[in-house]
Amino acid sequence: MIYLNSDYTAGAHPSVMDALSATNLEHSVGYGLDPYTKEACSMIRRLTECPEAEIMLLVGGTQTNATAIDGVLRHHEGVLAADSGHIAVHEAGAIEASGHKVLTLPHTEGKLSAKDVERYITEFYADDTHDHMVAPGMLYISQPTEYGTIYSRQELEALSDVCRHHDMPLYIDGARLAYALTADGADFTLADIARLADMFYIGGTKAGALFGEALVVTRPRLVKNLFSLVKQHGALLAKGRLLGIQFSTLLRDGLYERIGRHAVTLAMRLRAALQEAGYDAVVDSPTNQQFFHLPNDLIDHLHMVASFDYWGPRGATHSTIRLVTSWATTPAEVDEFIAVLKDYTQR
Amino acid sequence: MIYLNSDYTAGAHPSVMDALSATNLEHSVGYGLDPYTKEACSMIRRLTECPEAEIMLLVGGTQTNATAIDGVLRHHEGVLAADSGHIAVHEAGAIEASGHKVLTLPHTEGKLSAKDVERYITEFYADDTHDHMVAPGMLYISQPTEYGTIYSRQELEALSDVCRHHDMPLYIDGARLAYALTADGADFTLADIARLADMFYIGGTKAGALFGEALVVTRPRLVKNLFSLVKQHGALLAKGRLLGIQFSTLLRDGLYERIGRHAVTLAMRLRAALQEAGYDAVVDSPTNQQFFHLPNDLIDHLHMVASFDYWGPRGATHSTIRLVTSWATTPAEVDEFIAVLKDYTQR
Amino acid sequence: MIYLNSDYTAGAHPSVMDALSATNLEHSVGYGLDPYTKEACSMIRRLTECPEAEIMLLVGGTQTNATAIDGVLRHHEGVLAADSGHIAVHEAGAIEASGHKVLTLPHTEGKLSAKDVERYITEFYADDTHDHMVAPGMLYISQPTEYGTIYSRQELEALSDVCRHHDMPLYIDGARLAYALTADGADFTLADIARLADMFYIGGTKAGALFGEALVVTRPRLVKNLFSLVKQHGALLAKGRLLGIQFSTLLRDGLYERIGRHAVTLAMRLRAALQEAGYDAVVDSPTNQQFFHLPNDLIDHLHMVASFDYWGPRGATHSTIRLVTSWATTPAEVDEFIAVLKDYTQR
Amino acid sequence: MIYLNSDYTAGAHPSVMDALSATNLEHSVGYGLDPYTKEACSMIRRLTECPEAEIMLLVGGTQTNATAIDGVLRHHEGVLAADSGHIAVHEAGAIEASGHKVLTLPHTEGKLSAKDVERYITEFYADDTHDHMVAPGMLYISQPTEYGTIYSRQELEALSDVCRHHDMPLYIDGARLAYALTADGADFTLADIARLADMFYIGGTKAGALFGEALVVTRPRLVKNLFSLVKQHGALLAKGRLLGIQFSTLLRDGLYERIGRHAVTLAMRLRAALQEAGYDAVVDSPTNQQFFHLPNDLIDHLHMVASFDYWGPRGATHSTIRLVTSWATTPAEVDEFIAVLKDYTQR
Repeated sequence: MIYLNSDYTAGAHPSVMDALSATNLEHSVGYGLDPYTKEACSMIRRLTECPEAEIMLLVGGTQTNATAIDGVLRHHEGVLAADSGHIAVHEAGAIEASGHKVLTLPHTEGKLSAKDVERYITEFYADDTHDHMVAPGMLYISQPTEYGTIYSRQELEALSDVCRHHDMPLYIDGARLAYALTADGADFTLADIARLADMFYIGGTKAGALFGEALVVTRPRLVKNLFSLVKQHGALLAKGRLLGIQFSTLLRDGLYERIGRHAVTLAMRLRAALQEAGYDAVVDSPTNQQFFHLPNDLIDHLHMVASFDYWGPRGATHSTIRLVTSWATTPAEVDEFIAVLKDYTQR
Repeated sequence: MIYLNSDYTAGAHPSVMDALSATNLEHSVGYGLDPYTKEACSMIRRLTECPEAEIMLLVGGTQTNATAIDGVLRHHEGVLAADSGHIAVHEAGAIEASGHKVLTLPHTEGKLSAKDVERYITEFYADDTHDHMVAPGMLYISQPTEYGTIYSRQELEALSDVCRHHDMPLYIDGARLAYALTADGADFTLADIARLADMFYIGGTKAGALFGEALVVTRPRLVKNLFSLVKQHGALLAKGRLLGIQFSTLLRDGLYERIGRHAVTLAMRLRAALQEAGYDAVVDSPTNQQFFHLPNDLIDHLHMVASFDYWGPRGATHSTIRLVTSWATTPAEVDEFIAVLKDYTQR
Repeated sequence: MIYLNSDYTAGAHPSVMDALSATNLEHSVGYGLDPYTKEACSMIRRLTECPEAEIMLLVGGTQTNATAIDGVLRHHEGVLAADSGHIAVHEAGAIEASGHKVLTLPHTEGKLSAKDVERYITEFYADDTHDHMVAPGMLYISQPTEYGTIYSRQELEALSDVCRHHDMPLYIDGARLAYALTADGADFTLADIARLADMFYIGGTKAGALFGEALVVTRPRLVKNLFSLVKQHGALLAKGRLLGIQFSTLLRDGLYERIGRHAVTLAMRLRAALQEAGYDAVVDSPTNQQFFHLPNDLIDHLHMVASFDYWGPRGATHSTIRLVTSWATTPAEVDEFIAVLKDYTQR
Repeated sequence: MIYLNSDYTAGAHPSVMDALSATNLEHSVGYGLDPYTKEACSMIRRLTECPEAEIMLLVGGTQTNATAIDGVLRHHEGVLAADSGHIAVHEAGAIEASGHKVLTLPHTEGKLSAKDVERYITEFYADDTHDHMVAPGMLYISQPTEYGTIYSRQELEALSDVCRHHDMPLYIDGARLAYALTADGADFTLADIARLADMFYIGGTKAGALFGEALVVTRPRLVKNLFSLVKQHGALLAKGRLLGIQFSTLLRDGLYERIGRHAVTLAMRLRAALQEAGYDAVVDSPTNQQFFHLPNDLIDHLHMVASFDYWGPRGATHSTIRLVTSWATTPAEVDEFIAVLKDYTQR
C-alpha cells in the first residue's frame, strides 16, 4: 500500500532515528538546557541569519501556536487569521482556552492579502465602538497554507509592512515550512522568513522528525519569560535533548531541505500526471499537498493501491481528495500510483 | 434636544428612583440575600410560570452573558451565535476571556433560523475531525435582536426543538426583552420565553432600571453553584438589594410592560412618519429601535432638534441612522421630531 | 436595632442619593464618557496630585481587583498577597479565573512587611527551578487591611521601595480607604498613596456610595487599553455617569473624609468602652472595623439591641465578634450600645 | 561519571528504543487512533482490572495534570493538594492558567492525611461565606510523593473514602508510579490504585520511556470529551503511536515493574550505605529518590565520581542532597559510589 494520507504517518527520517538511538544511553540535563539543544539553536540562529533570535523547541504544532500567541497578546487583543487557518478551525479552541479571540478574514486559496489586512485594521479603528471590540493584536499566517499554496516573497513583504506599520507582530505557522522553502518557484529563504516575521516556527513533525517544532522569536523581547510560558502551557519536554538531537540532525548538511525537495518533487510528478489525465487541481499548490477533484470510480480504483484522504463530495459523480508526499514516499510508489491512474484513464 | 440615541441615556424610571430613595436608609444583608431580592425572584418565578427557576440579579449585560455562558459550557465547547450577536462583536472578548469560542452563523435581520442551526450541528458531527474542533455547546440568541427584529413564537419553538433534540441549552439575551414582549405583533409571553429557553435574562438597564439584569435559569441544575460563579465573575453586587428593589418595582403592576409599550408605541409613530415620507427602513423592526436610510441633508436637519446615532454611509448621498425610544421619550418629543421631518419633506 | 454588621448594609449617603435623584432625568452618553465622570476623574487627579493618572470608575471591589491585576500581570506571573488578603480568600477564585496565581505570604495583623516581601523575591530568584515556578509580578496590599489595621507612611514607603527596586508594581486595595485616611494616627494622605502605589482604588461602596470604586493608575502606561479590559471583565457600567455623579459628590468639599472620620470616631468610642470594660481587642485597629473577644453571654446581651457579625468561637466561653461603623451609624446608637454594655458589666 | 540527578537524564530503556526503531518505517493513522495505542490501552484496562477505563496517552506530566484537572473542575472549584505538591509549586501556574485555584494543605513528608482533608472540607462548608470562596472540587496527591514517600493502601483507602463521601474525585499523579508499586513494603497494586482513585496517570517519562504518561479515568463519564480536551491543551501527539509503542513495550511481561524494582533496589543499597555511615535521611523514602543531609566536604568528595542535585544548605557545615536511581543506573555504579563513601568515612 502506498501511503499518501499525510506527512506524519511514518516515524522519523532514518538519520533522525539513528541519532536518537546513538545518543540514547547518554545522560544530560533536562528541559532543553543540554548541549544538543544549544547546538540546534545555534544552527537555527545561523541559518536564519538572526543571531539575537530567542528559540524554544516544543513538541507539537497546537501547543506551539497556543504558546506563541499567548506570549504576544494582551487580554483585550485577538489574533487575525484566515478563516481557513489551523488555529481558527482545527485546534479545539486552544487559542480561546488561553483567553484570546481568533479574528477571521476570508481567504483566497488559504492566503490573506496585505490589502485585506490593512482594510480590516483601518475599519476596526474607524468604528466608534472599537473599544468595545477585540483589537487585532497580531497576524497569523501559515506558510505553506492549509491548501498547500505559498506566499511569495513580495506577498510576505507586503504583509510584514502592514504589520510593522501598525506595530502588530507577524507570526508564521511553519508546520510544513520545509515544503514551502523547496516549493516550485519559491523565491524566499529561511533568512527572509526570519527577517519578515517577528516570530515563526520551523516544523519538524511533518518534515522528518518523530516530533518537534522550533519556535523562533526574531524580534528581541517580544515575548517575556518564554521559558516559563512554555512550561505553563505544558509544552516543556523533560528530556528536551530529544528535540535538540532531532533538529540538529535535520538542520545539518541541508537534510531539512532535502526532505522538503524530495517530497515536493514527487508531489509535482503526481500533479503533472493528474493534470495530464485531465483532472482539475482544487488550488495551484506547488508543495507536497495536492488537492484534486476526481471521479468517484477513479478514487475507488486508486484506493486499491494507495491510501489517501477523502475531503468531501464534489457534485454527484466526483469528490475532492488530498495526496500528501513526504520523506517516506518513494519514487517507485509514485510510479505505481501513476501507472494505476493511466490504467484507469486508458480503459 | 430630543434624545433618541439609546434607551440608556437617562437615569431610572421615576418609580424605580422613588423606590431606591424610599428604602435608602434601611439596613439589610448584602449579596442578594435581602427580602427585596427574594421578593423580586418570587415575582419572576410567578410571571415566568416557572416555580423551580434559579434566579440571580446582576448589574450589566456583558457580565450576565459572560457568567451565564461560562456556567453552561465545558472547556471544549463553544457558544453558537449570529455573527451580528452582541457576544460576537461588542463585548471586547469577554466570552473568550473565560476560555470559550463564539461560533458564528450568518444572520437574517439579526436572526438565526432553526434550519441553519440544525445544519451547523449536523455538518459539525459529520466532519471526521470534529474532535479537533470546538463543539457547539449552547445556542445564544437575542430577543429582540441587535437589529430590533423579533423571533415569533413559532421560530422560538423551532429553535428550542433543535436545541433540545441535540441536548444543547438555549440561552436568550433579553437586554431589551421589554420591547419584544410589547412589540407590534408579538405572539409570545414571558412564560413562553421561560418555557422555550433553558436560561435567559430580563433586561433592566435598557428598560427603566438604573442598572440590572435578572438571569433566569429555567432548566433545573443547568448551572452548578451559580452564586459562586457570579461572585467569581465580579458580578455580585455588595448592596444586592438595589437590584431587588428595582426589579420588584419594575415587575409590580405591569410597569415593565408599560415601559415597553410606551417606547414601542412612540417608535411605531416615528417609523410610520418616516415611511410615509418615503424613506426605507433597513429592517422591519417592530420594537423600540428603528434603523433608516435617510438623505444626509435630512439627517443634518433632524440633528438640529434631535440627538441620534449615525451608523455609517449608504452610498454618496444617504446614511444609516438609528432611532431609539424609551420610557424617557415623550409623545411631545415625537410630535416635534415628526414636525421637523415634515417641514423638510414639504420644502 | 443598631446595625454594626458592615459598612454596606444601608444605601448611599443622603448627599449621594440626592445627587442621583437630581440628575435622574438628564440624558448623557454612556460608558463613562459623560461630563460627571470627567469631573470626578479631574477631582481625583487633583486630590492625588497626579495629573497623569489614568482613572476608570467600576462598580464593585472584586471586579476592580480582577481587572487591575489582570491588566498588570503577564501569564507566567502571579500576585503576591497576604494569606489573609481579600483576593486570596473571598473572591471565589476571580484572580485564578483570569489565569493568575495568588502567591501568599503570612501576615501580621493583616499586614505584610517589606522585609518579608524582599526575602520572598530574593529566595524565589535564588531557586534553581524558578523558571518552573510562578514569578511574583506585582504586590497586592489592602489599606486598611481586612483586620482594620493600617500601614504607616514609613511602612508603605518601605514596601514601595522594595517593589520599585524589583520593578514590581504595587497595587493597593482601598475598599475602605476612607477609614485609613481618617484613622487615629494616620500619617499619610491620598497623594502619598498615589505616589507610593502604582495603582490603587478609592472605595465607594463601603464609604457612602450606592456602589462604585475608582481605579487609579498612577504609573503611566502600566495597563494597556484599560477601557477595553474593563469592558472585557464585564465591569463597564452602561450608565457610567451614575459612578461619576457619586464620586464627584463624595469628593466635593471633603465629604469622603467626613464620612471616614465620622465612622472612625464612633468606632473609637466603641473600642474605648469595650477596653474600659476589660475586653481584649483581637488587633489594634484604628479604623471603623473593631474585632473583640467577648464572653458569649455578653454577646447575647448586646444582640438584643444590636446586629453584628460573629467570627467564631474563642475557647469555651468567649467568641470573636466584629463591629463596623459607617456614615449611617449615629452617635445615639453608639451611646445606646455602650449603655447596654455598661448595664451588663455592672450587673 | 555516575548520574544520580534524576530518573530522566538518559534516553529510553533499550527495549523501548528498539520497539521505536523496529516500527519506524511503518505507516499509521495519527492522534492515537492506531493499533499500538489501542493495544497499550487494552493492556492498561487489563492490568488495572478496570475494563471501562477511559485512557489517553499524553507526552508529559505538567500537561497531563493540567488537562486532567481542567477536565474535572468547574470554574468555581479548586484542586486540593499538599503545599509541596508538584502542581502547587513547579508547574509555572499551569493549573491557574486554566482558571483553577490550587488549594493547599500542609503536608507530612509530602503526604496528606484523610483527617486533614476531611477537616478542610468540613470547615470550608461551615464558613458562612464559603459561597465567596473557591470550593474544593477534587483532591490531588502524588504516589510516590515529591519526597519519595508512599501512601499505604490503608491511607489511600481513607483518602478515597473521604473523597467519595464528599463526591470529590481523587486524582493521583503517578509520574513515578513505577517506584511506588515496587517500593520496599508497598502493599498495593495497580488495580488498587485504579479502584481507589477516580483518575490517575501511569508515568512513563521517569520510568523508562522517552516520554509519555498514560492518563486513566476509572470513573465512567467523569471527564466529558476527553479527546477534545487533550487536543485543546496542546497535548495530543500527532504521531500518537509513539506513545502506544512505548507503553505497550513497558507494560508487556512486567518490564515496567522490573524497571521500578531495579531502581528501588539500587536506591535501597545507597540508603543503607549512607545510614550505616551515620548520615540522616531527610524522610524515610522507600523509593528511588533519597534525600540525605551530608557534610559539605563529603558532598565535594562524592561529586568527583557522581553527579547529583544539591537541595540547599543545612546549617553551616551540611547540605541536603538528592540521589535518584533509574533503569540506567548500574549495580557497578552504586558499588563505586559506596566505595567512595566508605573511603571518605574511613579516613
